[in-house]
Amino acid sequence: MKIAILPGDGIGPEIVAQAVKVLNVLGEPFEMETAPVGGAGYEASGHPLPDATLKLAQDADAVLFGAVGDWKYDTLDRPLRPEQAILGLRKNLGLFGNLRPAILYPELANASTLKPEIVSGLDILIVRELTGDIYFGQPRGVRECPDGPFKGQREGFDTMRYAEGEIRRIAHVAFQAAQKRDKRLTSVDKANVLETFQFWKDIVTDVHKEYPDVALDHMYVDNAAMQLVRAPKKFDVIVTGNMFGDILSDAAAMLTGSIGMLPSASLDANNKGLYEPSHGSAPDIAGKGIANPLATILSAAMMLRYSLNRQEQANRIEDAVKKVLAQGLRTADIYEEGTTKVGTEEMGNAVVKALA
Amino acid sequence: MKIAILPGDGIGPEIVAQAVKVLNVLGEPFEMETAPVGGAGYEASGHPLPDATLKLAQDADAVLFGAVGDWKYDTLDRPLRPEQAILGLRKNLGLFGNLRPAILYPELANASTLKPEIVSGLDILIVRELTGDIYFGQPRGVRECPDGPFKGQREGFDTMRYAEGEIRRIAHVAFQAAQKRDKRLTSVDKANVLETFQFWKDIVTDVHKEYPDVALDHMYVDNAAMQLVRAPKKFDVIVTGNMFGDILSDAAAMLTGSIGMLPSASLDANNKGLYEPSHGSAPDIAGKGIANPLATILSAAMMLRYSLNRQEQANRIEDAVKKVLAQGLRTADIYEEGTTKVGTEEMGNAVVKALA
Ligand SMILES: CC(C)[C@H](C(=O)O)[C@@H](O)C(=O)O
Ligand SMILES: CC(C)[C@H](C(=O)O)[C@@H](O)C(=O)O
Repeated sequence: MKIAILPGDGIGPEIVAQAVKVLNVLGEPFEMETAPVGGAGYEASGHPLPDATLKLAQDADAVLFGAVGDWKYDTLDRPLRPEQAILGLRKNLGLFGNLRPAILYPELANASTLKPEIVSGLDILIVRELTGDIYFGQPRGVRECPDGPFKGQREGFDTMRYAEGEIRRIAHVAFQAAQKRDKRLTSVDKANVLETFQFWKDIVTDVHKEYPDVALDHMYVDNAAMQLVRAPKKFDVIVTGNMFGDILSDAAAMLTGSIGMLPSASLDANNKGLYEPSHGSAPDIAGKGIANPLATILSAAMMLRYSLNRQEQANRIEDAVKKVLAQGLRTADIYEEGTTKVGTEEMGNAVVKALA
Repeated sequence: MKIAILPGDGIGPEIVAQAVKVLNVLGEPFEMETAPVGGAGYEASGHPLPDATLKLAQDADAVLFGAVGDWKYDTLDRPLRPEQAILGLRKNLGLFGNLRPAILYPELANASTLKPEIVSGLDILIVRELTGDIYFGQPRGVRECPDGPFKGQREGFDTMRYAEGEIRRIAHVAFQAAQKRDKRLTSVDKANVLETFQFWKDIVTDVHKEYPDVALDHMYVDNAAMQLVRAPKKFDVIVTGNMFGDILSDAAAMLTGSIGMLPSASLDANNKGLYEPSHGSAPDIAGKGIANPLATILSAAMMLRYSLNRQEQANRIEDAVKKVLAQGLRTADIYEEGTTKVGTEEMGNAVVKALA
């Protein structure tokens, strides 16, 4: 079993180091190889996703990814900017199925900006399509506006598109995820305005026939954004496209107030996957040893579960994380009075100890 | 001065009736004419935006709009569904500038699902472009997928686009709105992925040169969705495109927990406008006399301010609404213990009385 380790930028290297430490004490024969990505890839070889890094990721059974991005790369041309690495990995590895749990740990209920009764016990799963939609649709660019009142001016344009097979396969992922949970799936669209999402709705409705045990409902994206604020616990699994999923999964993560705790998985058709924390590279606190490594450690647990077929090890890690929270250990981002503030490494060590 | 009154469906007629009552006691020589729209338009003449209704709206100085939509029209073909009326009015009247305040009245602080310290005193303004973007871009439809791994299958597609002049005019609206407030503008984009919104960002940055007194910052839409949950009071004015604005303005409205209080304005280049509550037609409570008419009454106030040049009357109405809240009057949606629950008509009457 080979794991590609891509730490990236900002706090990426620090938090990934803790997850690697945890993987190393499991007693599994994992081979791990590290390569630069994002700004680090650009520094090393002039491109955010160096060929060797892509090849390593392609050859591995799973990818553990930290985070990419730093203000100092903001002035680079778009194709050279760090986040292009993550788009390139998703596309080249065919990682169409993004699973983003939004879970509020009971110990962290106060971290949320929402009232406890609205979010305590929150446990929803957002399934976001990750290789289609307006993220990759062609044509796109800046051109001369071809018609209408602004004819002849410059205009920016992009293409939103979803093919039938693309919608079917993400719908299957979502229905199957719902089967393992509370058996309720909400498909989020904008069928009242967009042709793409009327088509999406029709196909999801059709796939539903194969999952009669799952209750399906449809919700417009603007309403979904409202319901996430109003009554997030009413959701079980949400499935949506790449663009809407980007927005809603971040909003859902923030409901917990503890985005430093949230892992994610991005899977291909064979359950090979890339695993990364839901938060970003936080360049403002990079190198200070205060970042929360738990989202990355929990991403490693998801990797064990989905790509490496090690359910029990995944459970062990998740239990160890719960244990350190119960012990009152907190990194700065989730600290509150009466708990013990620890740094990145101490937190990693505590998880290792809890595993023993 | 001629006002087109378009009550629409669901609770639309009830709440618009209260706003009309308020307008009638101002002692202004307004001529008001009513026409059916949405499901009511479809019932009356087979189309959600009957020709006569569109003509009335075009000839008027301002439009007061209730709400459209009812489940019973869900099975109609898309071009006949109620919400097409609102899209048709926006496009035909050139109402490109949508102003949606999200204000939390001190008396209603408990209505929010967010903690009081996060939202009390919230007062942000979302400026949403309303006649461009992927809402109207051509081409769009369902076709045979022309390339890639799904070639030959059906695919749904839409076109996102913004011309330079379209971005400039909404940027001017937003900068000028910011000048009248706290002089801070956040432009929301997805420039890291979309050509349309890299272009958007460039043009907004250019327009900024004409407003050196306004502080401009740029934020990705996923981050904006997070920051609205995390620290909404940090925003002053937000400007964004039609699609992102749809999602963010609804999320922002829901932060207040009292969407029944929030008006909106949709303006053309000459400040002619359509005014409507931010909430929907709520068919589940239609005809029960319990809907909150205040968002519609406050929409009438916005109409007086922006289209009819009656600042003082606008202030009078807004003060009257504050007065009835201070008196403890509440419709069911904002009711809490210790206040007095009233129906739609009682609430309208109370505002009329407070105006005297
Ligand atoms: C960095 C960016 C391109 C990316 C996205 O929009 O998908 C990020 O926001 C995410 O959600 O992983
Ligand atoms: C009804 C629908 C077409 C409309 C929109 O998406 O613009 C609504 O959600 C709104 O925000 O006014």
